[in-house]
Amino acid sequence: MNPSKEKLVQLRALMKNRDLDAYIILNTDPHLGEYIPGHWRIVHWLTGFTGSSATVVIGKKFAGLWTDSRYFIQAAEQLSGSGFTMKKLNAPDETTPLEWIAYKMKKGGKIGFDGRIFSFEASENLKKHIKEKNVIIDENCDLISGIWTGRPPMPDSISFDHNISFCGKERVVKISEVCEQMKIMKADTHLLTSVDDIMWLLNIRGNDLEYSPLLLSYAIIGHDQVLLFTDDKKIPLKLASEFDRIGITILPYDEVQVILSRLKKGTTILLTPGTTNISLYNSISEKVHIIKDISIPTRLKAIKNSIEIENIRNVMVKDGVALTKFLFWLEKNIIAGRVTELSAAEKLLEFRLQQSDCTGPSFATITAYNEHGASAHYKPSSASNSLLRQDGIFLIDSGGQYLDGTTDITRTISLGTPDKKQKTDFTLVLKGLINLAMARFPAGTKGYQLDILARKALWDNALNYGHGTGHGVGFFLNVHEGPHSIGTGSGANNSFPLAPGLIFSDEPAIYREGKYGIRTENLLLVALDDQSEFGQFLKFETLSLCYIDKSLVDRSLLNSHELNWLNNYHSMVYEKLADLISSEERDWLAEKTEAI
Amino acid sequence: MNPSKEKLVQLRALMKNRDLDAYIILNTDPHLGEYIPGHWRIVHWLTGFTGSSATVVIGKKFAGLWTDSRYFIQAAEQLSGSGFTMKKLNAPDETTPLEWIAYKMKKGGKIGFDGRIFSFEASENLKKHIKEKNVIIDENCDLISGIWTGRPPMPDSISFDHNISFCGKERVVKISEVCEQMKIMKADTHLLTSVDDIMWLLNIRGNDLEYSPLLLSYAIIGHDQVLLFTDDKKIPLKLASEFDRIGITILPYDEVQVILSRLKKGTTILLTPGTTNISLYNSISEKVHIIKDISIPTRLKAIKNSIEIENIRNVMVKDGVALTKFLFWLEKNIIAGRVTELSAAEKLLEFRLQQSDCTGPSFATITAYNEHGASAHYKPSSASNSLLRQDGIFLIDSGGQYLDGTTDITRTISLGTPDKKQKTDFTLVLKGLINLAMARFPAGTKGYQLDILARKALWDNALNYGHGTGHGVGFFLNVHEGPHSIGTGSGANNSFPLAPGLIFSDEPAIYREGKYGIRTENLLLVALDDQSEFGQFLKFETLSLCYIDKSLVDRSLLNSHELNWLNNYHSMVYEKLADLISSEERDWLAEKTEAI
Repeated sequence: MNPSKEKLVQLRALMKNRDLDAYIILNTDPHLGEYIPGHWRIVHWLTGFTGSSATVVIGKKFAGLWTDSRYFIQAAEQLSGSGFTMKKLNAPDETTPLEWIAYKMKKGGKIGFDGRIFSFEASENLKKHIKEKNVIIDENCDLISGIWTGRPPMPDSISFDHNISFCGKERVVKISEVCEQMKIMKADTHLLTSVDDIMWLLNIRGNDLEYSPLLLSYAIIGHDQVLLFTDDKKIPLKLASEFDRIGITILPYDEVQVILSRLKKGTTILLTPGTTNISLYNSISEKVHIIKDISIPTRLKAIKNSIEIENIRNVMVKDGVALTKFLFWLEKNIIAGRVTELSAAEKLLEFRLQQSDCTGPSFATITAYNEHGASAHYKPSSASNSLLRQDGIFLIDSGGQYLDGTTDITRTISLGTPDKKQKTDFTLVLKGLINLAMARFPAGTKGYQLDILARKALWDNALNYGHGTGHGVGFFLNVHEGPHSIGTGSGANNSFPLAPGLIFSDEPAIYREGKYGIRTENLLLVALDDQSEFGQFLKFETLSLCYIDKSLVDRSLLNSHELNWLNNYHSMVYEKLADLISSEERDWLAEKTEAI
Repeated sequence: MNPSKEKLVQLRALMKNRDLDAYIILNTDPHLGEYIPGHWRIVHWLTGFTGSSATVVIGKKFAGLWTDSRYFIQAAEQLSGSGFTMKKLNAPDETTPLEWIAYKMKKGGKIGFDGRIFSFEASENLKKHIKEKNVIIDENCDLISGIWTGRPPMPDSISFDHNISFCGKERVVKISEVCEQMKIMKADTHLLTSVDDIMWLLNIRGNDLEYSPLLLSYAIIGHDQVLLFTDDKKIPLKLASEFDRIGITILPYDEVQVILSRLKKGTTILLTPGTTNISLYNSISEKVHIIKDISIPTRLKAIKNSIEIENIRNVMVKDGVALTKFLFWLEKNIIAGRVTELSAAEKLLEFRLQQSDCTGPSFATITAYNEHGASAHYKPSSASNSLLRQDGIFLIDSGGQYLDGTTDITRTISLGTPDKKQKTDFTLVLKGLINLAMARFPAGTKGYQLDILARKALWDNALNYGHGTGHGVGFFLNVHEGPHSIGTGSGANNSFPLAPGLIFSDEPAIYREGKYGIRTENLLLVALDDQSEFGQFLKFETLSLCYIDKSLVDRSLLNSHELNWLNNYHSMVYEKLADLISSEERDWLAEKTEAI
């Protein structure tokens, strides 16, 4: 019997005990971040599915796993024989999990889930969908702990101090700035649930998760102290005594719920509804006034300080050296016919780790050859791993974590002689990258206003890409960091006003199904531009440093501004990297960056 | 004694009778549209102020009139000695009327207003602001009728049939299409409060208001009949019998409230919260389910049908002829030194009225010489009226109502030799006009995504304009018509998805305070473009036909695409108008439209 089927039997027995008609599992953890520790990978353990997009709903007879188009093939394979049916998200004629629940639930039925992995927002959304069914919801329903034998423990990495020479601002200063903002918002207490907020505030980092240097923890900020909820073994003695000195008290991780339940009647707490799990939320007394908004550290840490910016510029040089060395190596070694998507990714990481203060990749490297590039989030596996040949298109989307910053860059290169259509596609994407990078705009402009600059050249040719244009990037933190982004919709992130110090990715693309994907991505820093009678204007500074493959550029499609941008960019890349690479690499880079 | 002061004394006596601490008057009518009849110009009668932006709040001691920056000078003059204080809207350090009320009202106080001139939304907004004050609100408080002697009666124009050759779709077909949509939205009844919705649905027009060919009325659509609420004297016999034949029942105007109050328990009514006055809203039983959304006719009439589009193209020729003849006349007559802003506007109207089926202007003509052009909504008066000289910049924003369509066009011309800065400003605005007009974009793109195309050339030079870029336009209806628009914000109108058949204005501008204003405006029709693997794409077709003053164009600032657009546009303008003007005008137009 498929192990998932056995687990399903056990789970349904527990559901029956609790009189549940349905049980819901989201693929996340109590902090609702992007990467989750093994301890919370319930979906994988239960269903065998390894993808990130997954909502599981178990009914008395039916059990389904909803995922998005990236994972349709993989989910169908991994769920085969598991007792779970794959359901498609965002597909025509397919219901969403919430619609399915709303449709299938009988009046007066009962639904359960573990409130620790449901955000306040997700819970509200569920309730809205089933409002008319008069359904009972048990938000305190952990059916997994009892049946998951050999469950991985919670991560136990030790935190470390993030030196002031990197982060640029003392933790006491940050805490007092947050308290200032709390006063303005009339909040007595501020709950932090996003781990990167806590890392930023306290100038610490950890190794609890892959890719992001985080230490799983909660924090509650009051006007006279900060409570940090984490296992005290995870805080080294030196750090603990420094914390003690400045009014940061370490309490056990699970104590956060107790402290929240004891908040005084009539006081006011600020929390973020999208990243506060409903279990925590429910522990707050109804007599406490709750302000729901993005957290203050989320807003403050998005604006990089001058030392962070200086460090980031330096990291870009290191990252550019690593990527340049890798691309040089690739060109020389591909001839032997032994480089694969996976081995290329390993080699790239090797070059990054040679750079000072690099701690690892900032996300799972995408090395995508030809048709693999056509899925925006392809990740090579031993099953899919392609051998690179001396023709076709190769897309590399990667990034590094450095003590002095986080990088994220995509280059698409030609491994042979590109055809006209490939060159046109590449050049239209490049025009998008350049036109966003060259934008000048009034302070306060929103991401949704700028998005078209990256798409216009594609739209002019009836082409498009199906994802956002730019995301924020953390500082030795999450590679995808809010509260800001650039995209077509007018949701909160695309509506966050642009201000100096914000960092955005700029990553237009085109995906030709079954053929190839082309994406070029640089990081941009928002900087001051002219001031006039019409107000303060802003501009972007391009941060990333790596040549763009000219063999894929159709020069005739670029106007003079775009051509100037490309030539200026290439001369900057050469200038900043040339002294840090070998003479052979330097000669090669000189050619790659020669003006066209 | 200033008459306003006397009225204020009478009003305060009535307030005392009703135990009111404050009385609020909005400058609108029960249909909450753009133009209001004399009968409802309470603000003008009471305060002497003639501007359109006005919110009046009368307290026991203080009486204030809030207006926006267009009217600061005018309001200060007109309110002098009236007992009303001018208050500035959108000015730093100034409270809004709602903030003022929220601040000044004592707990448990009482506020009154006439619910007929408060939308559901405005009323909700007020309640939200004073929630904590526990204030009693009397929404049924008409203190004006009793003291306004000689109040103008309600308008009594007679409606007329809008011929099928103009409107292109029979009223029965429109009614059945609306009923189809009502079924989809599960609405038993649909209340129409926006008069243009009713005109469109029933293919009638009237002359109750300036500028917009409307007959003040309400309508209620059910699945088997339409109730039209208007004085039956206003419907000619022939139309009335046709209405009778197809199930449209005419009922007295005021009967709408009675019918609404009798809606059956458990039924569902669709209404628009922004244009339904709270007095009507309150007459609906709490046991009726209310769907709040934009009205179905608002959505349907925005998409022009093929006959309307054909008619609009023809109207553009007529309007172009009128404007061309006017500009020719202006150039020849300005030398004599007797043309003023007001006389120019009269002359332009004269040329429009010479065209077939023109019924008048579609809004108050803006003829703005030099510094007058710097206020976006300047309207010449006998006090401000400038004499045009043979130098400087002249802005003309005007439109016509024709049985076969509505126009709105702005041209800015040089009356002498423009300087470099004027040419730069004009050309940057022109680039914006052109780049929006040339846009190609996926079906469903929102107005907020396209807005930057009209601003980019200005932003690149730290310039900007403070209003939206484009509004919808009715078909022999309101010149400003929703539900769609193009602008920087992401509110409902800018978020309405673009679809073929929508019409937008395209009107970037620059305003140099104390010097001049430059605005160029064409109307654009959304049309189908290519379809690809990435979906259906759309484009704009420029509808307006009038040359753009080349003497203000700095050719070196236009790229080849923009230059081609301008030359192609000019050859189209010449081609379409040349046969319809005198030979002298034709030679002159040939020069004005010659390629650069």
